[in-house]
Amino acid sequence: MKSLPDVDMVLFGGTGDLAMRKLLPALYQQVKTGTLSTASRILAAARKPLDRAGFLALAEATCRPFLGDAFDAETWAAFAERVHYFPMDAVQAESYGPLAEALGQHPERVRVFYYSTSPDFFAAMSANLGAAGLITTQSRVVVEKPLGHDLHSSREINDAVGQHFTERQIFRIDHYLGKEPVQNLLALRFGNVLFEPLWRREWVQDVQITVAEQLGVEGRGDFYEGTGALRDMLQNHLLQLLCIVAMEPPTSSDPDAVRDEKLKVLRSLKPFRPQDVATKTVRGQYKAGAVASQPVIGYAEEAGVAPDSRTETFVAVKAEIDTWRWAGVPFFLRSGKRMPEKLAEIVVNFRPVPHPIFGEAHHTNRANRLIIRMQPDESMRLYLEAKQPGDAMALHPVNLNLDFAESFKARRLEAYERLLLDAMRGKLTLFVRRDEQEAAWRWVEPILDSWAANEDRPKFYTAGSWGPAASSALLSRDGLAWNEED
Amino acid sequence: MKSLPDVDMVLFGGTGDLAMRKLLPALYQQVKTGTLSTASRILAAARKPLDRAGFLALAEATCRPFLGDAFDAETWAAFAERVHYFPMDAVQAESYGPLAEALGQHPERVRVFYYSTSPDFFAAMSANLGAAGLITTQSRVVVEKPLGHDLHSSREINDAVGQHFTERQIFRIDHYLGKEPVQNLLALRFGNVLFEPLWRREWVQDVQITVAEQLGVEGRGDFYEGTGALRDMLQNHLLQLLCIVAMEPPTSSDPDAVRDEKLKVLRSLKPFRPQDVATKTVRGQYKAGAVASQPVIGYAEEAGVAPDSRTETFVAVKAEIDTWRWAGVPFFLRSGKRMPEKLAEIVVNFRPVPHPIFGEAHHTNRANRLIIRMQPDESMRLYLEAKQPGDAMALHPVNLNLDFAESFKARRLEAYERLLLDAMRGKLTLFVRRDEQEAAWRWVEPILDSWAANEDRPKFYTAGSWGPAASSALLSRDGLAWNEED
Repeated sequence: MKSLPDVDMVLFGGTGDLAMRKLLPALYQQVKTGTLSTASRILAAARKPLDRAGFLALAEATCRPFLGDAFDAETWAAFAERVHYFPMDAVQAESYGPLAEALGQHPERVRVFYYSTSPDFFAAMSANLGAAGLITTQSRVVVEKPLGHDLHSSREINDAVGQHFTERQIFRIDHYLGKEPVQNLLALRFGNVLFEPLWRREWVQDVQITVAEQLGVEGRGDFYEGTGALRDMLQNHLLQLLCIVAMEPPTSSDPDAVRDEKLKVLRSLKPFRPQDVATKTVRGQYKAGAVASQPVIGYAEEAGVAPDSRTETFVAVKAEIDTWRWAGVPFFLRSGKRMPEKLAEIVVNFRPVPHPIFGEAHHTNRANRLIIRMQPDESMRLYLEAKQPGDAMALHPVNLNLDFAESFKARRLEAYERLLLDAMRGKLTLFVRRDEQEAAWRWVEPILDSWAANEDRPKFYTAGSWGPAASSALLSRDGLAWNEED
Repeated sequence: MKSLPDVDMVLFGGTGDLAMRKLLPALYQQVKTGTLSTASRILAAARKPLDRAGFLALAEATCRPFLGDAFDAETWAAFAERVHYFPMDAVQAESYGPLAEALGQHPERVRVFYYSTSPDFFAAMSANLGAAGLITTQSRVVVEKPLGHDLHSSREINDAVGQHFTERQIFRIDHYLGKEPVQNLLALRFGNVLFEPLWRREWVQDVQITVAEQLGVEGRGDFYEGTGALRDMLQNHLLQLLCIVAMEPPTSSDPDAVRDEKLKVLRSLKPFRPQDVATKTVRGQYKAGAVASQPVIGYAEEAGVAPDSRTETFVAVKAEIDTWRWAGVPFFLRSGKRMPEKLAEIVVNFRPVPHPIFGEAHHTNRANRLIIRMQPDESMRLYLEAKQPGDAMALHPVNLNLDFAESFKARRLEAYERLLLDAMRGKLTLFVRRDEQEAAWRWVEPILDSWAANEDRPKFYTAGSWGPAASSALLSRDGLAWNEED
C-alpha cells in the first residue's frame, strides 16, 4: 500500500474502549504496512493523568490481545515513536495548550480529530478546537454513532459540529460500511453483470438483515435505558446495510454519488403510520436465561435499569421500499442483545423456481440465497441447486464461496483500518452524510413515538433465544421465516 | 442405484471400436453398481467367427485399459456370465437363428438392439429383425450418428428403420447429451432462478461452442472423404449442444417436452442464403504440421484421400437464432481435427458491465463468462470479478467451480452409461427425435450446397493450429474473439 502524506491523528477519548480495541490497533497495522509515514503523529488525548510512557504501557497492555499474531516488538517500537499523549479535559478550553502547540509544529498537515467520546462533548470539543484556531481547511472530524437519540437531538449535535466543520470535513463513521463483505457486495453488484438483473422484485423474495449480540448491557444499563436497540443499532447500522443492498447503481463511486443513492433509499422507505407499528415492528426485552451455557440475569435486573423498564433490547421491523425495484419485497431487520450467537448477516432470499420442470420430487424446496456475513466470520456465500452426479436428475443444495479470500494473497483490512485510511485521505464514500442520518431518524421516529405512547412493555424473551415469538410471527404473516443456519 | 428389470441388450457390431471402448465398459459398470440384474443378458453379435470364450478373451483384453481402476476380476466374472456371443452376418436373414432362439427364451423382456455398425446396414438389420419376429412392443433400437449425409439420405434411413420400429422405440444417440456437464447445465438453468433471467440477449453477448480433436482421420480417410466436419460433428453434436444452451424452459423434463423445445430452436435458426455462406461459414483443411510436438502429415496426404480433396476437416459457423430471447446474439460453432488440443466446451460470454462505477482503472476489461467443459476434463466454471481484499476497491477476475463434483460422493457417469440406462428404461429425453434431426439437416444443407457449387478448396491450416485465419475473422467482424485458455 502506498504511504500517505504526513498526518496528525488526534484521538479524543484516547484511553477509552474504542481507542484501545480498534483505533490504536488499526493505526498499528498502518505502521506495519508502511501506510502511516514515519513523520505522522498519533496524538491521544484523555483525562487520565498519564505521561507518554504511562500511556504507551497502558496501550501496549490493552492492545496486544487485539493485535494477536500481528504484534511484534519492532513494529510496536516504530508505532510508539509516533504516539504522543495529552492529559486534558476536552471540554475545558484552557486545557488545549499543549495539544495546540504540538499541532502548531505542522500547520500544513492533514489533521484528523477523532471524537471517540460521548456525543455530549462534541459541541464543546468543536467549539474549543475552533476557538484555539486548530481547525484548518485540511482538518477533518470523525464522529461515532449514535448521534443523538432522535431527529431533534441529532440535529443539535450536527449543528454544533457544523458551526466549526463544513459537511465535507465531517466523517460520520458506521463501521459496518467498512467491513470487507460489505465492500465485496458492492463489487459483486457493480463489478459484474450477473447480479444486477436479479437484484429486484421480480427475483428477490425478501431480504433479512440481522445484527445479534450475545452480550447484554455489560454494566452500562444507565446509558442503555435511554437508548434501546432501535436507536443503538437499527437506526444506524441496519439501515445503512439496507441502503447498500437496496440502492440503485450510483453513477460513480464518488462519495456524493453513493450517498445520494443511499439517501434515495432512506427517503423511499414506506413511512410507518401509527397503526402499522403494531403489525410491522416488534420490541423485546430479555429476561433471565442462558447464553453459551452460562446463566445470565434479565435486563430489568441489570444495574442502572428500572425494574419496570420499557427499553427494548431487541427490535425487529418489516421495512418496505416504495420504488419500482423493490415494491412488495419486505426487508426484515432485527437486532438484539443476549441472542444465542454473535451474528451479523444480510440474507437475500431469491424467489423459488417458478415451475419445477424436473418434477416436484427432484427439486428441493429451497430457493437460491445469497448470504453476506460480517459476524462471527466474514464471508459471502451463494446457495444454489446443483445436479448430484450420477444417473438421475436429482437436485441438491450446494453453496459457493464468493468471498474469494483464498484467491488473493492480500491481507484483509479491519473495518476501522479502512475507515481511518479513508478519513486521512478525505474519502467520504463510506461515511454517513447528515441528510442520510436525518432521513433515518425521520423514518424511525413514528416507531419511537408510538412505542412511547403505548403503555405496553416490550415482549419478554428468554436470554439466549432469538427474541420474542412475535419476531417469527412478523415473517410468518408473509409466509416467510428467518434464515436458519444450515 | 436401483436395479432395472431384466433386459436383453443386443449389440450389433459387438467387436467394433464403439462396443469395445464404450458400450461393454458401460455395461460392466452397470454390473459393478448392481444396476444390471443378474438375469439380464448382453448378446453381442458380429461377423468375427469366435466362440463365447474367444469373444470374452477379446473383450477383456480390449476393454481393460478403458476400465482402468474400475476393473476387478470378480466383477468381470459376474459381467462375463451375462455375455453371449453370436457370430453372424446381420445383413443375412438366415443367420439370425441362434440369436432368435436366445431372445425367444424371454419374450416378455425389454430388448434393446444397439446398432453399433455403419448406417448402411440399418435398413437390412431392421428388416431382418422384423421378419424374424424379434421386434416386440417392449423392443427398442439405438442408432448411432451420423445418420446419412444429407436430409434425403437421413430420411431414407429413418424410413427404413421406421418401418419396423415406432418413433418412440427409436433412440438416436448423441453422446454429448449424456455428459455430466451438459446435464449440470440443465440443472443450473432450470433448478435455480439465478441464471434464467440472465440467459437472454439483454445479458449474453455471444455463445461459443467448440469441439476440437487432436486426432486426424486415423486411417479412415476413405470414410471421411464423403463426410467432413460439418456432417460429422457440427450437424449433430454442436447443434444439439446449441439447443441445450438456447432452448426455452420446457414445461417438464418429459422427453417430448424437451425435444419440442430443442426442435423450436433448430427451426428458429436463421437460414443461410447463398451469399451468407461466404461470410458466416469457414471451412478448413489441415496441411502438414505438428500436434503435441509430433510431426503429422496433411489431410490430402492421408491414405484414401484425394490429393485435391475439397473435404473440410475444420468448420466454423456463425449461427443466429431468430427469437425474442436470442435475436442479435451470435452463436459461434467450430469443430476441427488436428487442433492443438482435445477440447469440447461451451462458452457463454455475458455482456460487459454497462457502466464502470469504480472508475476505468479499477475495473478489469473482462466480462463475466460461464464455461461448460466436456473435454479434456468435465467442469463448469463461472468467471466473475471480485474485490481484492485490502484497502482499495480493485476488481480482479476469479472463477467459481459450479461442477460440485467435490460436494458429492456419488460417482460420475460416463455419457454412454447414462444413455444405455436411459435406453433400457425407455427414457427418450436425451435422444434425438426424427424431426430434430431433419431440422438440423435442413439448416446445414444450404451450406453443403453452396460449398459443393463453389470451386474453391477449403482454406488450409497448419495441423496443430486453431484452424484457418478466417475462423478468427468470423468473430472479429463482430468485435469478438474465440475464448482462450486462462
